[in-house]
Amino acid sequence: MDYLELDGGREFVAGMDHGADWREEIEALAADVGVDAGFFVALGAVQDVELFYYDQGRKEYDSMVFDEPLEVAACVGNVSWLSVSEPRSDGSSDEYSESDGGERFAHTHAVCSRADGSTVAGHLNSGTVFAGEVYLRELDTHLEREHDETTDLDLWPL
Amino acid sequence: MDYLELDGGREFVAGMDHGADWREEIEALAADVGVDAGFFVALGAVQDVELFYYDQGRKEYDSMVFDEPLEVAACVGNVSWLSVSEPRSDGSSDEYSESDGGERFAHTHAVCSRADGSTVAGHLNSGTVFAGEVYLRELDTHLEREHDETTDLDLWPL
Amino acid sequence: MDYLELDGGREFVAGMDHGADWREEIEALAADVGVDAGFFVALGAVQDVELFYYDQGRKEYDSMVFDEPLEVAACVGNVSWLSVSEPRSDGSSDEYSESDGGERFAHTHAVCSRADGSTVAGHLNSGTVFAGEVYLRELDTHLEREHDETTDLDLWPL
Repeated sequence: MDYLELDGGREFVAGMDHGADWREEIEALAADVGVDAGFFVALGAVQDVELFYYDQGRKEYDSMVFDEPLEVAACVGNVSWLSVSEPRSDGSSDEYSESDGGERFAHTHAVCSRADGSTVAGHLNSGTVFAGEVYLRELDTHLEREHDETTDLDLWPL
Repeated sequence: MDYLELDGGREFVAGMDHGADWREEIEALAADVGVDAGFFVALGAVQDVELFYYDQGRKEYDSMVFDEPLEVAACVGNVSWLSVSEPRSDGSSDEYSESDGGERFAHTHAVCSRADGSTVAGHLNSGTVFAGEVYLRELDTHLEREHDETTDLDLWPL
Repeated sequence: MDYLELDGGREFVAGMDHGADWREEIEALAADVGVDAGFFVALGAVQDVELFYYDQGRKEYDSMVFDEPLEVAACVGNVSWLSVSEPRSDGSSDEYSESDGGERFAHTHAVCSRADGSTVAGHLNSGTVFAGEVYLRELDTHLEREHDETTDLDLWPL
């Protein structure tokens, strides 16, 4: 277990825009206010969602699209910088890259639920917001992900 | 994405009373200590639970009752004021009203689980506490929900 | 609802070691930095997981082992001291005991998910980390669980 002690920074509550993207909204908040590291919890509902499952053997994300209205029953995650392209299952390599070599990434996991209470969950790549409420806590550091050979994921070099 | 930067306030841990109502316990804590805005995470178990799913087309909450003992595997939410009646699927209109025109509302989502690990999740309206542990973080503001026309929900006017 | 107002303390982010145990990693972090009370949120993936469901009638934990790679879609919990042996479904009575009569216990609940989005959830006893990210908030107190007769669980005497 590698860890970092951090000073807590600013705190925010936010309401997501109806029709916007769930993860992009969190990243837009972080970018707007200049949060370079933080953690968040969120809840609400989406009109559809794309979840990823990481295949630990193949070391690739598999995508699942649920094109149906769902509650976001639990959503937790963190914000940090992603300096290199994250490997994607579709072969694209520059999804998170910017001209300055990186951008804020909201690592977002979510449990979504249907009218009968049944659930689908995973790594939330995208989702159309119906309504969403976020609490974001800034952590006073610049946290940047780096490629990890063992898992082929971008993890924190703590 | 509309947001508000807030000063963090007091912090509380709480143990819910066996046999009490899960959401009312969080609201009672907020009322007892005078928290007007906050976020919380909770875990524990319930003897039964009533979950809501918001029908995004009909714009009404549908209720599901699970009359069985369940773990509360994840529970996240926030506390703010509700100044007007929230529309309910049963037609009642004064569930959250008080003589002073409003009260603290714990917007509570939860994922519950059974002995085989299977889950049910949604907007937690009520549930009989078996045991419950809460972390509540006050946010130093008065946050009050207002009716939103697009979603027909009571959201924060940030 | 019994509660305690607490001063927030230090804050940590941590990356769990690949191949280590999910819950032990959180407890190792708390022990390393001397956190006697705190709350955490975590996300990531496990190679396998053992979840507990508490049978509220028999007052015993039942174990479920899922020997498959899973996302940890949501994980919330708290850290406090456990001074006495926690009753276990297998009859063991000293799982959490140390020579000094107690140790830090990470009360950990989790929702895990598969490649099709389906979920299993409960009280996380153990799980082999694939990758895991934790936010831990210290609360400035010494919080110690005591046996509760009504539930036969170790709860906080607030």
